[in-house]
Amino acid sequence: MSVIALCLCCCLMGFAKAPKYVFFFIGDGMGLNQVAATQYYLRSCQGELGITPLCFAQFPYTGIATSYSASSDVTDSAAGGTALATGHKTNNGVIGMAADEATPVTSIAEMAHRYGAKVGITTSVTVNHATPASFYAHQRSRNDYYEIGTQLATSGFDFFAGGDLAENVNPHDHAAPQLYDLISEAGYTIVRGYDEYETKAIDADKVLLIQKHGAVENTLPYAIDAREGDLTLTQITTAAIDHLYDKRHKKGFFLMVEGGKIDYACHANDAAAALQETVDFDNAIRLAYEFYKQHPKETLIVISADHETGGFTLGNGSYELRFGALQAQKVSQAGFSRIVNRMRHETKDNVTWEQMKEALKENFGFWDTVQLRERDEQALRNEYERSFTGEKNVKMAESLYYRDEPISALAVRILDRIAMVSWPVGSHTAAYVPIFAIGNGAEQFTGQMDNTDIPKRIAAIAGYDKAK
Amino acid sequence: MSVIALCLCCCLMGFAKAPKYVFFFIGDGMGLNQVAATQYYLRSCQGELGITPLCFAQFPYTGIATSYSASSDVTDSAAGGTALATGHKTNNGVIGMAADEATPVTSIAEMAHRYGAKVGITTSVTVNHATPASFYAHQRSRNDYYEIGTQLATSGFDFFAGGDLAENVNPHDHAAPQLYDLISEAGYTIVRGYDEYETKAIDADKVLLIQKHGAVENTLPYAIDAREGDLTLTQITTAAIDHLYDKRHKKGFFLMVEGGKIDYACHANDAAAALQETVDFDNAIRLAYEFYKQHPKETLIVISADHETGGFTLGNGSYELRFGALQAQKVSQAGFSRIVNRMRHETKDNVTWEQMKEALKENFGFWDTVQLRERDEQALRNEYERSFTGEKNVKMAESLYYRDEPISALAVRILDRIAMVSWPVGSHTAAYVPIFAIGNGAEQFTGQMDNTDIPKRIAAIAGYDKAK
Repeated sequence: MSVIALCLCCCLMGFAKAPKYVFFFIGDGMGLNQVAATQYYLRSCQGELGITPLCFAQFPYTGIATSYSASSDVTDSAAGGTALATGHKTNNGVIGMAADEATPVTSIAEMAHRYGAKVGITTSVTVNHATPASFYAHQRSRNDYYEIGTQLATSGFDFFAGGDLAENVNPHDHAAPQLYDLISEAGYTIVRGYDEYETKAIDADKVLLIQKHGAVENTLPYAIDAREGDLTLTQITTAAIDHLYDKRHKKGFFLMVEGGKIDYACHANDAAAALQETVDFDNAIRLAYEFYKQHPKETLIVISADHETGGFTLGNGSYELRFGALQAQKVSQAGFSRIVNRMRHETKDNVTWEQMKEALKENFGFWDTVQLRERDEQALRNEYERSFTGEKNVKMAESLYYRDEPISALAVRILDRIAMVSWPVGSHTAAYVPIFAIGNGAEQFTGQMDNTDIPKRIAAIAGYDKAK
Repeated sequence: MSVIALCLCCCLMGFAKAPKYVFFFIGDGMGLNQVAATQYYLRSCQGELGITPLCFAQFPYTGIATSYSASSDVTDSAAGGTALATGHKTNNGVIGMAADEATPVTSIAEMAHRYGAKVGITTSVTVNHATPASFYAHQRSRNDYYEIGTQLATSGFDFFAGGDLAENVNPHDHAAPQLYDLISEAGYTIVRGYDEYETKAIDADKVLLIQKHGAVENTLPYAIDAREGDLTLTQITTAAIDHLYDKRHKKGFFLMVEGGKIDYACHANDAAAALQETVDFDNAIRLAYEFYKQHPKETLIVISADHETGGFTLGNGSYELRFGALQAQKVSQAGFSRIVNRMRHETKDNVTWEQMKEALKENFGFWDTVQLRERDEQALRNEYERSFTGEKNVKMAESLYYRDEPISALAVRILDRIAMVSWPVGSHTAAYVPIFAIGNGAEQFTGQMDNTDIPKRIAAIAGYDKAK
C-alpha cells in the first residue's frame, strides 16, 4: 500500500469539487498512545523492535486536537461526542445540546441528511450510547437511553448499526411503546447478524443492524473475545457501505463508525484487549480505504477520538517494551471473568488451585510462554485463596463498564507489568486526541485544533453546512 | 498573531527556492502531553477551562514521530539525538555513530556546514550533553564528555551555547589539554553571560557562549528558578540569531536549539518545573517566529522532541484538572532541595517544624493558597521528623539528574496530586513525539513518520544533502 503516493497524486491533481463520500471514524478512548502502542505491539509479536504501521496511521495528514468540554478539562464521551458531531462544546453528560443544556445543536449527520446525503451511524457498542447518540439525539443526559432511542427512530437516517439498543423499554413508563417497535414503525428494517442483513435488508429503505439474540452483552464482543458468527465492526462497516453507496445518488453519503470498546478496555486497564480492539478498528478503516482507492477524488476519510482513556503509558520505568508478551492473553479481563464464573458454576464453587492455574496458563500463558516472578505467582495464589476458598472474600474489580473477578484483574495487571505497560488511571485524561486524514479535503486536518473544529471542517469541505 | 493566515499565504505563493534559514528546536523529553499540559496550565492560571495556546502549538503543520532506537523501543537521548541529527537509528548511549558503534554518521549540522551555511548548536544543558553532541560528535558513549568536547572544538561550526561544558579535563589523562583551551585554540571566543556576548563577541568569528562563573549548576537554571542576571535560553537564541544571520551570506544558517531541562524536570516528576520549562522553550521559539515573519519565504522552523519522559498524564482519576494549583510552586524540586540545604546549614542542622512549614508555605503555597488534606500534612510532618530530628534518616530522592531532599520530593508529589497530574514513571517512554512546523517546506512535516525522517526531510528541503 502506498498511501502517501496516492495522496500526493490527488494533491497534484487538485479538486474543485467537494467529496461525495465522507467517512468519520471515532476511536472512543483512543489517544495517541493507544495508536502508537498498537503498532509497537504488532511489531513486537514478530520479535522485532519498532512498529508495524496500522493502515490509518499511514494516512498523509495528521493533526492533534484538544478535547476539554464546557464543564471540565477532562471530557466524558457525551460532551466529547457532541463536540465531534456538532462542533459545539457542552457539559459532560449532555448529548447534542449546548452548554445551557436546553438548546439543541445540529450534528454534521443531520446537516448531511438535510443536504441530501445518505447517513449511517454505527458503533461497536450500543446504538444509543453517547458517541453515536451525539449524531442524532438531543438530550440533557446520556443515560436517557430510551429517549435517545426515540430520536434514532425519528432521525430519518438511512443506516444504524451496533451491538444492540442499551434500553428498549421506557423505564419511567412501561406502557410506552418499545423502541424496537418505534424504530420498525419509522420504516427501519431491523436485522440481527450479518447473515440476516444480507438476506433481509437487500431492498430495505432504512436499516438497523444489531447482534443476534443471545449475545453475551449488548455491545459487540471485544475483538479478542469474538467467536465465529459474532457480528463484527468490519461486517458493520461492510454493510454500511453496501447500504449507503449508490453511484446514481449525487449527494453521496456520510458514515460515522465508532470503535467504542477501545474505551471499555482502557477503563479496565486491559492492554491486550485495547490493542486488539484498535487493530479491529483499523480493519474497519481498511474497508473505507479500499473504497477511497476506488473513488479517490470523491472520498474523505477522517479518523479521530473523543478522548484518551487510562493514561496508557508505553513503558514502566525500564528503557524497553515487551509488548509481545501480550500475545499470550487470549481473552479480555471481562472474558476471563466469565470463564472464572463458569468454572465456579461447573464446580459448584469448588474451583481448585490446579484448575485455576490451568485456566491462567491457557488464557495468559503463565507457567508456559510467560514466566512469572515468585511474588506474582504468590499474589495469584493469595487471590485464589481469597476468592475461592474459606470465606470467599470476593471484592469485585470495578471499572466503568465491568465488575470483574479480582483474579482476572490481577492476571491482567501482572501481564501488563511484564509487557511494560503503565496505566496511571482508570478514567479519561485530557491528552490530545489524534487526527488522521486522507482524501479530498484531508489537508485541512493538520495542526493543533480543537475537537469542535473537526466537524466544522468536515461540514465545510463536504458542503453540508450550506444545506438549508 | 495569525500563524495560519501567514502560512496559507506562503503556501499560495509557492516556493521554488529552498529556505535559507533553518531552525530546529528540540524539546528534550517533551512529549505531546507536556505540550498539551503547558497550555492547560496557562489557561488554568487564569481560572478558566481549556487552553491558552503556545506560539509553536499554533504552527500550521503537525506530525507525530516514533522514537524507538536500534537497541530498544524506548530510546535514550543519545540515540534519540542521533536519530534527529543524522537520520540514523543507533543504540542507546551512542552519539553520531551507526548501530555498529563504529561507523560515524553525518549530521544535518555537518551537512549544512559543508553546504556553506552558518551553523549554531545550542542548549539549556551542557554543550557536550547527548542532544547537542549528536550534531557535531561521533562517540561510542554519551558519557565521554571530554572526547565529545574535542569534537566540538574541531567541528568548525560558528556558534555554540549552553550552560557550560560537562567536563573540561580529560579524566583518563590529566595532562591532556583542557577543553576550554582546545576550543579557544580552535578559534572560538568563549564568552560567559549575555552581557559578555554583547561586548566581547561582536567581531568574533566563532563563539562559545556559556554561563558566568559561579553558576549553581553547569546547565542553565530551571526557568522556574532563574534569577536576574542568569543566562537564559531566550538570550542564547537571540545571540545565536545575531551571530549567524548575515543578509549577505547566501547560504543562510542552520540553528538547533535544545530545551534540555524539560527532560530533567520530567525525570524528577516535577510538573511545575516542566511546564515553566516548556513555556521558556516556547519563548525561545517566539524569537524564531519573529525572524520568520521578517523572512517568511526563506525560513523553515521545525519543533520536535527526542522522546517523552515520565508518562506525564493529564488527570489522576477524577474528571477534571486543577493545573492552576501549580502556580503556587515557586521553585523546582531541586531548587527547594537547595533551600532546605541552606536551612540546614544556617541552623547548624537544627531546622524546626515551624521553619520548615514557613518554607513550604512560601514555595508551595501550603497552608495558604493550597489547602492540604490532613494526611498530606501528616506525611510532610513525618518526613520532617525523619529528615531533621532524631537520627535524621535522610534517604535522598533520586532522579536521573538530581538527588533531592525527600521533603522537597514529597512536597512536589503532593502539589502534583492536588493539580491532578499523574507521573507513572521516572524514565523515558515510547510515546510519539510531536512535530510542529511553519515556513518554507513545513508542509512536509505532517503525518506519522519516524524520528529519522525529520533530519532527512530538513536536509532535502534546505538542500544540505546535496553538499559535497
